[in-house]
Amino acid sequence: MVYKTNIRAPRGSELSCKGWTQEAAMRMLMNNLDPEVAENPDELVVYGGIGKAARDWESYEKLIATLKELENDETMIVQSGKPVAVFRTHENAPRVLIANSNLVPGWANWDHFYELEERNLMMYGQMTAGSWIYIGAQGILQGTYLSFVEAGKKKFGTADLRGKWILTGGMGGMSGAQPLAGKMAGAVILVVEVDRARIERKINEGYCDYLVETVDEAVQLVNKLTAAKEPASIGLVGNCADINRELLNRGLIPDFVTDQTSAHDPINGYIPNGMTLEEALQLRKTDVKTYERRAKETMAEHVRTMLEFQQAGAETFDYGNNIRAYAKEMGVENAFDFPGFVPAYIRPLFCEGKGPFRWAALSGDPEDIYKTDALAKEMFAEDTALVNWIDMAQKMVKWQGLPARICWLGYGDRHRFALRVNEMVANGELKAPIVFGRDHLDSGSVASPNRETEGMQDGSDAVSDWPLLNALVNTAGGASWVSIHHGGGVGMGYSQHAGQVLVADGTKLAAEKINRVLISDPGMGVVRHADAGYDIAVRTAKEKGINMPMLKG
Amino acid sequence: MVYKTNIRAPRGSELSCKGWTQEAAMRMLMNNLDPEVAENPDELVVYGGIGKAARDWESYEKLIATLKELENDETMIVQSGKPVAVFRTHENAPRVLIANSNLVPGWANWDHFYELEERNLMMYGQMTAGSWIYIGAQGILQGTYLSFVEAGKKKFGTADLRGKWILTGGMGGMSGAQPLAGKMAGAVILVVEVDRARIERKINEGYCDYLVETVDEAVQLVNKLTAAKEPASIGLVGNCADINRELLNRGLIPDFVTDQTSAHDPINGYIPNGMTLEEALQLRKTDVKTYERRAKETMAEHVRTMLEFQQAGAETFDYGNNIRAYAKEMGVENAFDFPGFVPAYIRPLFCEGKGPFRWAALSGDPEDIYKTDALAKEMFAEDTALVNWIDMAQKMVKWQGLPARICWLGYGDRHRFALRVNEMVANGELKAPIVFGRDHLDSGSVASPNRETEGMQDGSDAVSDWPLLNALVNTAGGASWVSIHHGGGVGMGYSQHAGQVLVADGTKLAAEKINRVLISDPGMGVVRHADAGYDIAVRTAKEKGINMPMLKG
Ligand SMILES: NC(=O)c1ccc[n+]([C@@H]2O[C@H](COP(=O)([O-])OP(=O)(O)OC[C@H]3O[C@@H](n4cnc5c(N)ncnc54)[C@H](O)[C@@H]3O)[C@@H](O)[C@H]2O)c1
Ligand SMILES: NC(=O)c1ccc[n+]([C@@H]2O[C@H](COP(=O)([O-])OP(=O)(O)OC[C@H]3O[C@@H](n4cnc5c(N)ncnc54)[C@H](O)[C@@H]3O)[C@@H](O)[C@H]2O)c1
Repeated sequence: MVYKTNIRAPRGSELSCKGWTQEAAMRMLMNNLDPEVAENPDELVVYGGIGKAARDWESYEKLIATLKELENDETMIVQSGKPVAVFRTHENAPRVLIANSNLVPGWANWDHFYELEERNLMMYGQMTAGSWIYIGAQGILQGTYLSFVEAGKKKFGTADLRGKWILTGGMGGMSGAQPLAGKMAGAVILVVEVDRARIERKINEGYCDYLVETVDEAVQLVNKLTAAKEPASIGLVGNCADINRELLNRGLIPDFVTDQTSAHDPINGYIPNGMTLEEALQLRKTDVKTYERRAKETMAEHVRTMLEFQQAGAETFDYGNNIRAYAKEMGVENAFDFPGFVPAYIRPLFCEGKGPFRWAALSGDPEDIYKTDALAKEMFAEDTALVNWIDMAQKMVKWQGLPARICWLGYGDRHRFALRVNEMVANGELKAPIVFGRDHLDSGSVASPNRETEGMQDGSDAVSDWPLLNALVNTAGGASWVSIHHGGGVGMGYSQHAGQVLVADGTKLAAEKINRVLISDPGMGVVRHADAGYDIAVRTAKEKGINMPMLKG
Repeated sequence: MVYKTNIRAPRGSELSCKGWTQEAAMRMLMNNLDPEVAENPDELVVYGGIGKAARDWESYEKLIATLKELENDETMIVQSGKPVAVFRTHENAPRVLIANSNLVPGWANWDHFYELEERNLMMYGQMTAGSWIYIGAQGILQGTYLSFVEAGKKKFGTADLRGKWILTGGMGGMSGAQPLAGKMAGAVILVVEVDRARIERKINEGYCDYLVETVDEAVQLVNKLTAAKEPASIGLVGNCADINRELLNRGLIPDFVTDQTSAHDPINGYIPNGMTLEEALQLRKTDVKTYERRAKETMAEHVRTMLEFQQAGAETFDYGNNIRAYAKEMGVENAFDFPGFVPAYIRPLFCEGKGPFRWAALSGDPEDIYKTDALAKEMFAEDTALVNWIDMAQKMVKWQGLPARICWLGYGDRHRFALRVNEMVANGELKAPIVFGRDHLDSGSVASPNRETEGMQDGSDAVSDWPLLNALVNTAGGASWVSIHHGGGVGMGYSQHAGQVLVADGTKLAAEKINRVLISDPGMGVVRHADAGYDIAVRTAKEKGINMPMLKG
């Protein structure tokens, strides 16, 4: 079914539900499908290939209708994007509980998922798509910026990437953050993207500076801009496997190489080479098996080029799309020779409970976000990276849907900040409540052995007790809505993760929930890493007084 | 580590914790390891091969110590049997949240599990072992009795199995209920068990009548007893694959054939043929790969015999140990020609939210259970099967650990009954609080495509959103402890399931929780089956007024 949508969440302080929690869930669901935010709202797709906010349009309508009627002591149950039940709970319980795309492990593969999707029994929830806290490209922007900065520190001992260049792939929903993030970090960034329209979109959004059609043009630009130490972003129309090979043939070795094409999904994501984009889309429809094989073969070649860049000295990393696993499946034995970005750059932050914390203004008024920006800069003045980020974000990030901000805050800071914001809602400084959430890619909410939990020092990469406990404790604490997903960015079979969102509506009840959930949520991150033996996490747990009955060391 | 145990939960109305919920969790954990209850308490094994209550003895001690200190607004987090954290929640939240044996699907196999177990990062939780609500053989007795009765109704149109005979395998923790259950149903039941000591134990417990060593003796007894229409149980020492073959060779076809050896675990459960038990245990230690292969080969032969019995007219069913899957893996293409017991006999009950509901008396006094028995007989007087069950159970079930009762109550009845019991605790009729729980094998708490959700009519067998939502809604409602497990009775990769336990301590708060959790918990079962299109469930949802926003039909 195609449904021409033009969904836009209500703004302002008037309620259309029976409480702000329900209202927030309704607005954030709608916001996920706002054409400013969603990649393909007509298909209910928010981001990441097929990551959806609701199973189908009928489910969407019923979700909205049910939220409007939901009492403050009721909880709506959502199974893969469909509202299946409402049960009575209590005011300290979540208003919505969500499970998306979860399959018994023996059946947790794309084939079975698509079979179920075809029968309309399931949808793909990605991470924040099906859990209604996607905030557009900014969400990933801070994380991508941070990864580039950390990669720079590691490779060159400095966060200043001027005069350096980055090669990557993909300019879609999440990957579309790369050009701007690379530029923010000071680098020249060349993004290979097979779909011209995606580059054009990013240029229109101000996220990308140049569009080029040939390797020659691209190389000329890169040379000129790096020589001038001028930060800039370039979109090159082409297939990564081919372009990378051509660059290698010419002996051009970037300082940094990564990739964020939608390789997690070899059927509806990644585009094979040796054919035009249109031919590929056609093949996907007519012969999906051949499509899948060709896509995986292209990934194998793509990864081989990345390995060669690494050999030649480029700082090379996997950027969370699971491309190494598929390449390995296709015979590239040493695919995992380059690391994932988490063990390489992000895990030390996770050990302090830091991760992609974010908030959105239900008023719809950017002023509300600017006020929270000011508060963050005041409260965390000593954190220069954070202050810089907010300054840059204010200049460079375009609002998409409800105004929102992302900041990597850790254990101890999240709840302190949210409590202050809750006061600002209470005393009218802000025009309407604020919604606090985070990506499922967070410190204590995901098990994903090829990404967030790759190479854990105790070998516990695949233990998914942790994200499940995260969901349970956030439910117990009274988050506004809680979700458990399978798949996400790395695809079927490769991850389990949990999300939570919490509304600060200025009430005392909200403050109590903040004091529980925004402690236990990042707390589980510190605990998970301390239990695995990471020094930083053990220290954090001890210094902050987290109660871990069996903590040693 | 071997730890000579003699654990026995405290009895009576004196608290050693700061509240009855914590006290209940502590007593039920201890009760799971009571030598009267547990299969192998020295190894912390409760039942089902390696199903444990705590990861190791240090974890056990810390679980107890933490429960003793836990406040009424705190929640202990248990990761695969180890207490990893305590967070502040609130009085309407669970006191304990548990996740056991959960693995990211791509790694959800026995090899990886054992690797993690060896590093002491994980334990196997089975269903009620790691979630502290195993009550010994009675738990399974009612279910097994019920299955035999329903099988009888299907095959012969009568629940009276006198003069019929049942052939099955296994007399361990759960399977040990078979001899008594078969006898209760009126049949002569022949149970093949490779371990003589297991049969002796069941004879000592009054669960089995005869032990025989040869097929000749067994056949003679069966013939005599069936002719006399005398209900009886016989344990025959031997390997199922061999004994079944010999019976086939002699042309002896039972009326019912099933099996409950621990086939879910080809390494630490099932015993291969062609060697003595001692040789098998030795081989397991010296050459685990060969052991595994030989075990699976034996399963294949075992299943072939079951298929031949079926061909010859026996009512044959899989009894939840996943033996068909391993046989199929070993080349028995038609292994799934005989059905699982759930689609065959149990699903119609699930559609009404019925399942293995149970309760235990924290007083330790059997009188408390007799009083609840009387209440159940009074409240459900029109349900003759239930009344009969209670009468038989009072006569035939020996107490193991804390006195307990199991009754398959459904949606609407569970909370009504528990509220009445809560009043009896309040007014002193009962000497101490009562703990209400259930198996993970319940109406709405499990996804297990080879067992509980085999052959769902909409094809949703493998969708594990459902058990996860069950855990979330029970957490939201304020169950005393909640658990999410992977594996369980069918082994790694084959199931995900959830448990909940709720304490009735006579308070108003307990009544409120009962009114939420004992509605939402069986409610999720009705919803799961109604969503799949089962008429009985759709009718139940409508008649009982369960709020299902998208229910059709
Ligand atoms: N930090 C992280 O770990 C993280 C965060 C978000 C997304 N991801 C992952 O990154 C990937 C991309 O996410 P997205 O939301 O941008 O997906 P998307 O589908 O919106 O965008 C992917 C883009 O890649 C392009 N593409 C596909 N194959 C190509 C090829 N061979 N050559 C060139 N271009 C090609 C597509 O045209 C598309 O524009 C996903 O796998 C996602 O899971 C990782
Ligand atoms: N209703 C259900 O679906 C349900 C309920 C409980 C248990 N189960 C399953 O039933 C199985 C048994 O559970 P359990 O707790 O009794 O396990 P257990 O390990 O305590 O007992 C199994 C018994 O089988 C015997 N055995 C193993 N291989 C044999 C062979 N080849 N021939 C003869 N005997 C053999 C063992 O000696 C042991 O006594 C498990 O797979 C469990 O998951 C199913």
